[in-house]
Amino acid sequence: MNYDPWLFIGIGAGLASIAASLVYYRWVFRQDPGGEKAQAIALWIKEGASTYLRKLYKTLLVVAVVLGTVIAFVFSGDAAGPMRGVYTAIAFAFGALCSAFAGWLGMSIAVRANVRTATACVDGVAKGFNVAFKAGAVMGLAMVGVAVFGMSLIYLLTRDTEILLGFSFGASSLALLAKAGGGIYTKTADIAADLVGKVEIGIPEDDPRNPAVIADNVGDNVGDVAGMGADIFDSYVAAAVAAMLLGASFFAAGKVGVQYVVLPLILCILGIASALIGLQFVKVGRNGKPGGALNFGTVFSCVVFALLATAFFAVANGLSAAAGAAPAYNWGILIATVSGLAIGVIMGFTTDYFTNDEHKPVRRTAEVSKSGTGLTIITGFSYGLVSIAPAVVGIVAATLTSYFVAQAFGIPGIYGVGIAAVGMLSLTGIVVSNDAYGPIVDNAKGIAEMSGMPHEVVDTADVLDSAGNTAKAITKGFSISAAALTVLAMFAAYTEVISKYSGGANLVLDLQNPLVLGGILLGCLVPPLFSALTMLAVTRNAFTMIEEIRRQFKAKPGILAGTELPDYKACVGIASDGALRSLVLPAILAVVLPLAVGFILGPAALGGFLGGSIFTGVVFALLMSNAGGLWDNAKKYIEAGNCGGPGSEAHKAAVVGDTVGDPFKDTAGPSLNTLITVMSLVASLFAPLIAQFHLF
Amino acid sequence: MNYDPWLFIGIGAGLASIAASLVYYRWVFRQDPGGEKAQAIALWIKEGASTYLRKLYKTLLVVAVVLGTVIAFVFSGDAAGPMRGVYTAIAFAFGALCSAFAGWLGMSIAVRANVRTATACVDGVAKGFNVAFKAGAVMGLAMVGVAVFGMSLIYLLTRDTEILLGFSFGASSLALLAKAGGGIYTKTADIAADLVGKVEIGIPEDDPRNPAVIADNVGDNVGDVAGMGADIFDSYVAAAVAAMLLGASFFAAGKVGVQYVVLPLILCILGIASALIGLQFVKVGRNGKPGGALNFGTVFSCVVFALLATAFFAVANGLSAAAGAAPAYNWGILIATVSGLAIGVIMGFTTDYFTNDEHKPVRRTAEVSKSGTGLTIITGFSYGLVSIAPAVVGIVAATLTSYFVAQAFGIPGIYGVGIAAVGMLSLTGIVVSNDAYGPIVDNAKGIAEMSGMPHEVVDTADVLDSAGNTAKAITKGFSISAAALTVLAMFAAYTEVISKYSGGANLVLDLQNPLVLGGILLGCLVPPLFSALTMLAVTRNAFTMIEEIRRQFKAKPGILAGTELPDYKACVGIASDGALRSLVLPAILAVVLPLAVGFILGPAALGGFLGGSIFTGVVFALLMSNAGGLWDNAKKYIEAGNCGGPGSEAHKAAVVGDTVGDPFKDTAGPSLNTLITVMSLVASLFAPLIAQFHLF
Repeated sequence: MNYDPWLFIGIGAGLASIAASLVYYRWVFRQDPGGEKAQAIALWIKEGASTYLRKLYKTLLVVAVVLGTVIAFVFSGDAAGPMRGVYTAIAFAFGALCSAFAGWLGMSIAVRANVRTATACVDGVAKGFNVAFKAGAVMGLAMVGVAVFGMSLIYLLTRDTEILLGFSFGASSLALLAKAGGGIYTKTADIAADLVGKVEIGIPEDDPRNPAVIADNVGDNVGDVAGMGADIFDSYVAAAVAAMLLGASFFAAGKVGVQYVVLPLILCILGIASALIGLQFVKVGRNGKPGGALNFGTVFSCVVFALLATAFFAVANGLSAAAGAAPAYNWGILIATVSGLAIGVIMGFTTDYFTNDEHKPVRRTAEVSKSGTGLTIITGFSYGLVSIAPAVVGIVAATLTSYFVAQAFGIPGIYGVGIAAVGMLSLTGIVVSNDAYGPIVDNAKGIAEMSGMPHEVVDTADVLDSAGNTAKAITKGFSISAAALTVLAMFAAYTEVISKYSGGANLVLDLQNPLVLGGILLGCLVPPLFSALTMLAVTRNAFTMIEEIRRQFKAKPGILAGTELPDYKACVGIASDGALRSLVLPAILAVVLPLAVGFILGPAALGGFLGGSIFTGVVFALLMSNAGGLWDNAKKYIEAGNCGGPGSEAHKAAVVGDTVGDPFKDTAGPSLNTLITVMSLVASLFAPLIAQFHLF
Repeated sequence: MNYDPWLFIGIGAGLASIAASLVYYRWVFRQDPGGEKAQAIALWIKEGASTYLRKLYKTLLVVAVVLGTVIAFVFSGDAAGPMRGVYTAIAFAFGALCSAFAGWLGMSIAVRANVRTATACVDGVAKGFNVAFKAGAVMGLAMVGVAVFGMSLIYLLTRDTEILLGFSFGASSLALLAKAGGGIYTKTADIAADLVGKVEIGIPEDDPRNPAVIADNVGDNVGDVAGMGADIFDSYVAAAVAAMLLGASFFAAGKVGVQYVVLPLILCILGIASALIGLQFVKVGRNGKPGGALNFGTVFSCVVFALLATAFFAVANGLSAAAGAAPAYNWGILIATVSGLAIGVIMGFTTDYFTNDEHKPVRRTAEVSKSGTGLTIITGFSYGLVSIAPAVVGIVAATLTSYFVAQAFGIPGIYGVGIAAVGMLSLTGIVVSNDAYGPIVDNAKGIAEMSGMPHEVVDTADVLDSAGNTAKAITKGFSISAAALTVLAMFAAYTEVISKYSGGANLVLDLQNPLVLGGILLGCLVPPLFSALTMLAVTRNAFTMIEEIRRQFKAKPGILAGTELPDYKACVGIASDGALRSLVLPAILAVVLPLAVGFILGPAALGGFLGGSIFTGVVFALLMSNAGGLWDNAKKYIEAGNCGGPGSEAHKAAVVGDTVGDPFKDTAGPSLNTLITVMSLVASLFAPLIAQFHLF
């Protein structure tokens, strides 16, 4: 059987998904943009977001040119011809461009959909939900569309999975900048706006007199739309590329047939199909629950994907049987795919336990807040530590299941793990849609309040917003587990590349080898260090912004009186410049450290280093995301009138918990996925060189 | 050359050290116990401590009987004869007993030395220091004495390093109960006393009207004297046993001579000698600095030890040369020993950077406290994360140096790592002495205040106390690195035992083996989970005690008026019972989880599990200890009049930071060393069975 048509189908499916995204875009764009005041606020947010994106993409350009040149140069001595380096560099630039395009499209619609959602809320929950969700789908569909289009095109042209690594590295480089930068941006603005506005001056949140209020709203978009989208996009591409590379490597070794090289791409295509079908069924009745609709969409898409995958396996094997050949695909791989998918869904929902106010962790944290802030922090942090356990057990279960099932069916076990990651990420289209919905409705609520819309409209927006928070928690649980499985597959891809370029000698990463052990311990350092750098950047930038806010209030007394507009742009500028400047050191860490370990301590130490970064990366990502979500909801639980209600001592303690949780859950925690993906891609990409040149 | 005499010398040196300890005991006991009021308070503390120790040892008895029976039973089918199980069980019980004896002796003198130190402060710093330091030395000398005595005796009688594992496991089991239990106890009392006394009622710290004040003072002793001592004791024994086991294993394989089996014990003997010499030189002049004296003692003992070790190598090799034989010991092993020692000292002092108020981390944390509690927590936590880096780099450097130096000299590299751990821990005698000094002077200060001694006496006690805090920080940095090196050696010992019982097939712990990888990820879970359980226990028990304090104030109004004594015993009982009850689940985790992983997922997974527990164990131990120390000192820095001084907003924020840091640095963080040691000992001890029986 010839699998080449699937590459053309991939290009077609990618373009179809982008087209569907543009259709949604047009639909949302045509909705009523609302009254003058709301539009003016939305315009401020839109311009702030554009400022940041322009600067981000300018930074990216510099990074892309530097890294692209390095890649083109160092691979110019490649045995396969000097042009391979150039192709890899082009793939790298293309990957970054694809991710940037999808992110830009998502942001562009998000900053338009917010005011339209607010306006639609006048007609009730169903209408508001529809606008926000369709806007979220713009980014979800664009993401999976450009990814599948890009991967299919590059593989069609080059037939070289190592050049695909370049594409994936491009996507991840952008993701690291977008996610960590967005995370620093959003919390800088959030903390500064709160500390001066709410605490010092005593004006409410989302008050237009606060010079940082626009930066704060922009932050929601750059952190949660562009950042989170780029993060999941990079896992998505990395998972598919790692599985394709493993397939190609095992094909070259005669262990599997050629059909397994393209299978990851085929599963991505089926994922696009299931997302397009699933999106049609996400609707809220006149009095329905938006949260239920979002979850229904996710589960429904899963079922559709599982059915499509089964049908594909049956048809492919049926055709082979009809042609008198052996079955094309091994059923064990279908089991691996579905087990990855199932565990992805289960993990998303168990994350919910630790951050939902219906369960013990949030309630207990709220309860102890009555006796002091110290206990709020200790208790929330402890539950955050506990929350690591079910997630890690889930990751281990997914790894072992997919490995041994594949092996039992005669396929190399690690290919099964790679396919499980692809299976889990086949949900990406719908998950990114749900996730982008969150900040859109959050902004919609802000605009409704700031522009003085009627009370019931604000309430409707609030209903939409609560559903967004749950969706966000599920997305985080999902994205961390997906990233973990992906980097495990990428880790295997790294060792395959090293073995290939070491004359076929297998790279054994024995824990008893001191270089491996040393590598692991050094790798364990990177996630905590990266977290610390980004969080310290938040506090430093917030200080600069606080100075600026105070300066404005002092220089123009009319601002507080409401007769003069504050200079929103100054705060937007501080947040943008500060975030991008603070990225330099963490980004260098992510690229330079793996190379330093590899070229100095050798390929085995680098293998250990990647392993170590995964171990603490997963632990800290889960801890920080879940503890942060827990504190946020404990505060909301108290604000809903429990444990003394708003203004009580418990509430003050919970507010501190929330401030601590903000950079945990929105800056440091979720950036760690991208960090470990970038580091494993750097290692895999440079593996051919490291295999040949290293000090130890 | 015959090395048997060294076993007798070991027994002699151990007894000599115990004798020296008893001489110091007698000297301290004969000092002036002070006035009636001070004595009454000291009596309360002494009785509280006895209550706790009695209960702790009762718990230990149950654990020892259960585990001892299990050990005797499961090893009864041993090929080497059914009595081997019984011997191992006896060694286990003996190890627990030795640790208990040294801990009891240390506590017994600490609760007598506190009031005597307070009284001696009347005569100035030099006198007070002398009493407190000699009392600390009682425990330091007793610890190393019983350890060397026990190991020498057992090895002399059995010549079986695997039975020594039983001894080490006994010591570690007690250490886990003592350290985690003491940590929960001390912070339960501390937090409850502060929240009701200082916050609700507004009486000062260490006020005799507070029903929890005695429990709080007892806590310092059970946490910092008995707990920390048992912790370092268990690393000390485990390091020596692991190195002896590796020596025996390599001797059996013909890779090293028999002299390397006993070498770790010889180094311990030299360590005792250097501690006995070093202690003589720790003195404070009339206006000298106690901190300088403590540090001088540590560095001086190191130099003495290095000289003694060099002399020993020279004499041993000279004797061999005279007899016409090859050199007895390889000089590479001396380099490994000294490099371990040097790195131990350097690490202790670098820890100081992150927790000393003369450097940026503490000052910056104090500075941001002016803008809110949230920033105090984020900044301190971030610096805690950064503090992991130099320590881990140091551990990696020590591991690689000792490994490759040994290997370059023709000795198996991992034996070099084991010896580096022994070299580092040769300091134990002096380090434990310095550490026990801390709570004694802390209590002395409390007693001086409570019993109304003159202002200048309290000031003198305060000078002694500050030096104690620095010593404590250094001890923690030291003990974490020592534990890390020790468990790395124990980890190697585990694989040796597994290989031996698997018919000689080498156990390869390849990161690409999914069982190893799964084991690592599960192992990574345990330290965070253990930390969470102990911290949640603190908050839960503190709540119970808070209720009791409130009840007493309500039932007896005379307490606050100062006309009626509170019921101190009730609070002591709550702290004791609560701590011991809360230990059940964490202790079960530590023993049952490694066995479950081993018997279900197999020896390779268990190897991974141990590795994983080391990785996150080291990371969390450093993070929690250093962040906790940093917050504590940031508070003290503000109380010294900086950043607004006492009573300012910054001070309130720093107090919260200190409350969060308390269970970080005194409950969860330092227990993790013991946890990972216990887990690796359980694994090594049961390795012969696991090698034969496992599901996967």
